[in-house]
Amino acid sequence: MAERNQQLQSPPGDCKVAEKIAEMSVVDKVPSEMANGGVEDSNDVVTPWNVESNNETGIDYDKLIQRFGCSKIDDELLNRFEKITGHKPHHFLRRGIFFSHRDMHTILNMYEQGKPFYLYTGRGPSSESMHLGHLIPFMFCKWLQDVFDVPLVIQLSDDEKAIWKNLKIEDAIKLSYENAKDIIACGFKVEKTFIFSNLEHIGNNAAYYQNMIRIQKCVTFNQVKGIFGFGDSDPIAKISFPPTQAAPALSSTFPFIFKNWKVPCLIPCAIDQDPYFRMTRDVAPRLNHPKPALIHSSFFPALQGSKTKMSASDTNTAIFLTDTAKQIKNKINKHAFSGGRATVEEHRQFGGNCGIDVSYQWLRFYLEDDERLEEIRKGYTSGEILTGELKKELIEILQKLVADHQERKNKITSEVIKQYMLPRDLGFVVKSK
Amino acid sequence: MAERNQQLQSPPGDCKVAEKIAEMSVVDKVPSEMANGGVEDSNDVVTPWNVESNNETGIDYDKLIQRFGCSKIDDELLNRFEKITGHKPHHFLRRGIFFSHRDMHTILNMYEQGKPFYLYTGRGPSSESMHLGHLIPFMFCKWLQDVFDVPLVIQLSDDEKAIWKNLKIEDAIKLSYENAKDIIACGFKVEKTFIFSNLEHIGNNAAYYQNMIRIQKCVTFNQVKGIFGFGDSDPIAKISFPPTQAAPALSSTFPFIFKNWKVPCLIPCAIDQDPYFRMTRDVAPRLNHPKPALIHSSFFPALQGSKTKMSASDTNTAIFLTDTAKQIKNKINKHAFSGGRATVEEHRQFGGNCGIDVSYQWLRFYLEDDERLEEIRKGYTSGEILTGELKKELIEILQKLVADHQERKNKITSEVIKQYMLPRDLGFVVKSK
Repeated sequence: MAERNQQLQSPPGDCKVAEKIAEMSVVDKVPSEMANGGVEDSNDVVTPWNVESNNETGIDYDKLIQRFGCSKIDDELLNRFEKITGHKPHHFLRRGIFFSHRDMHTILNMYEQGKPFYLYTGRGPSSESMHLGHLIPFMFCKWLQDVFDVPLVIQLSDDEKAIWKNLKIEDAIKLSYENAKDIIACGFKVEKTFIFSNLEHIGNNAAYYQNMIRIQKCVTFNQVKGIFGFGDSDPIAKISFPPTQAAPALSSTFPFIFKNWKVPCLIPCAIDQDPYFRMTRDVAPRLNHPKPALIHSSFFPALQGSKTKMSASDTNTAIFLTDTAKQIKNKINKHAFSGGRATVEEHRQFGGNCGIDVSYQWLRFYLEDDERLEEIRKGYTSGEILTGELKKELIEILQKLVADHQERKNKITSEVIKQYMLPRDLGFVVKSK
Repeated sequence: MAERNQQLQSPPGDCKVAEKIAEMSVVDKVPSEMANGGVEDSNDVVTPWNVESNNETGIDYDKLIQRFGCSKIDDELLNRFEKITGHKPHHFLRRGIFFSHRDMHTILNMYEQGKPFYLYTGRGPSSESMHLGHLIPFMFCKWLQDVFDVPLVIQLSDDEKAIWKNLKIEDAIKLSYENAKDIIACGFKVEKTFIFSNLEHIGNNAAYYQNMIRIQKCVTFNQVKGIFGFGDSDPIAKISFPPTQAAPALSSTFPFIFKNWKVPCLIPCAIDQDPYFRMTRDVAPRLNHPKPALIHSSFFPALQGSKTKMSASDTNTAIFLTDTAKQIKNKINKHAFSGGRATVEEHRQFGGNCGIDVSYQWLRFYLEDDERLEEIRKGYTSGEILTGELKKELIEILQKLVADHQERKNKITSEVIKQYMLPRDLGFVVKSK
């Protein structure tokens, strides 16, 4: 309720209506989405800057759904998805890798009614090469773009990385361009995709800065303190940043794409980014925009196990998209945490534990064939399949995936990058009925 | 010392060198400029958002100089100014209307050595029409530009007004354009002057946003709390703003004018803006820029007296640049606080008090002739000149001044405004010796 009250000491500006809504909410005892979440509980830490669990099986996602106040992706939603789109849900959906959502039914309703929406995702470019975990939201976005045939905006939050990772502005921009190559290599349609670096684009789009100010007017320091855990000794760069990540969820941020239409937005992202968008969902209606819908992924585990996610700064926790076939083989053989038994004999007798075996977990992300995955699960659990065999299958899949990615990436010239990163009309039109 | 300590819990970023400097400073017991000032003392309140005094003679400026840690403009500085520039100091300088400075000797040294610098001033456009008090920094800047023949950048902080005054973004931008007309009518050289609206220009100049981030990285919430008195329930728009006003004091914010040169900056402004630039002076060296120099004006008193400054929101406290001759006459006759006696007889016998008489105070700003001003002072003090006569002289001066201003303003087309507000090369060159 503290947060609720803070909202009532409301900031000035375009927010008068919002204050009314806020007051109504209090009367109705409907809590603000901003109030949900909190930073950590006893076991799991999930913030935009830190993800840690004490459990070998990783984060307790059901608890997280409760804590964040979002909704589990259930069979009903998946069935509706298939019925409405005519597409079998992606294996990330079928296997609960994308496991949670906010307002996905609204998005499906819109699609069903032929109404437009757009996709927004992003990345903070903290290293030259992306790793396998970073690919997940982009692979999924690419698939969603194919299914829905909608525009996609991709934010490279190099300003965020300059702030949090102590990077020089110039170096952060360079990383944006490096990462843009990896992102483009995922196969997005150039005619429907706009990729931008904050440090370059915000100074090239007056509507963006204006929306940042509008959002900043609606959020107090108390609120960002509650949502993100900022403190008094934090630089104001951190305190100022959340609206910069929020702005692209409002279609008016991109007038060259969406003109004057208020277009709903769907944001696929890892669950640790939810705090930004809880804030955005609280603010959007005050600025006369629809709340963005969300679809959340779980974390891609580090080679060392599910207690943490992969880290770009520790090269042995991750397979990078620049790794050679040999490096991939060595890293998995050497570092992938095994759910197998101490000896072959014991393994044959008691079987392995897929729940904690990183190679098996990775296969869930990267082996598309459901039947083969089920065979492996059964075989490993029963002891029929040994850790080495499991790893061999994973290595082959990843070697091919990374080699294919590198081949596509090598073809991406600076001219191609420019095409994606040029602010431009994407041919988006709202048809009036 | 609290502030000093906050600086040591220093933010990340381009500030590593700064942390070293900060540590050294502690050892050397040299306090940070950021630490000076504080928000108010027992009698006078001087912040960027509020100026009030309990004394009939207005703010105690000597105390303010001590509190803010700046330097009084003394005869030595004025003599040097005249010697080096060959110009008699402006009557604003001769009469102590611009009364305080930081590093003006450095600027004079540079001018003496033929080294370049630039001028930066600004205005928060809170109403369509500016009033006589708003003219002061611009009249002075115009004179400085003529004397030094240097580039001038003028910030219209419409974002600030959108935040503090609860204006819509669109309306704040409109006010910028209205105010730009009044500013241009002061007679700035178009070939050396760049005027910009924050809400339009920041989204049109990537270097600006990048410098905002650099500055935001160097300032903590504790620091802006100490300098500006922000609280936890303030919207983060307020907390984010000070770097937006600071950035134009770094020449790298305007690469289209200053290329890669690090050019020193002189900021003429009212003393209430000093907190922004104390912060800027603290940050600039960390970002490898010279500290901006400052020259401070006192406040133009309200018609009602020197306890407060004129307010755009109370039309009877000020003469607006849109007022008619009749309005000027009526407002001064009706509202100008008099230092005269209750009856003509008493006035003849005991004389008037120029120290509290608003008409006399205004003549100090707008009557250029030193001899005539002295005649008036003596005559009013001795009782020879009556309040009505004093007011008559002031009314004639202001009627002419405002009519001339209106005539110049009426000639300013939107084409002319565009010329001033276009980001462009001002022909600025640093000659290497």
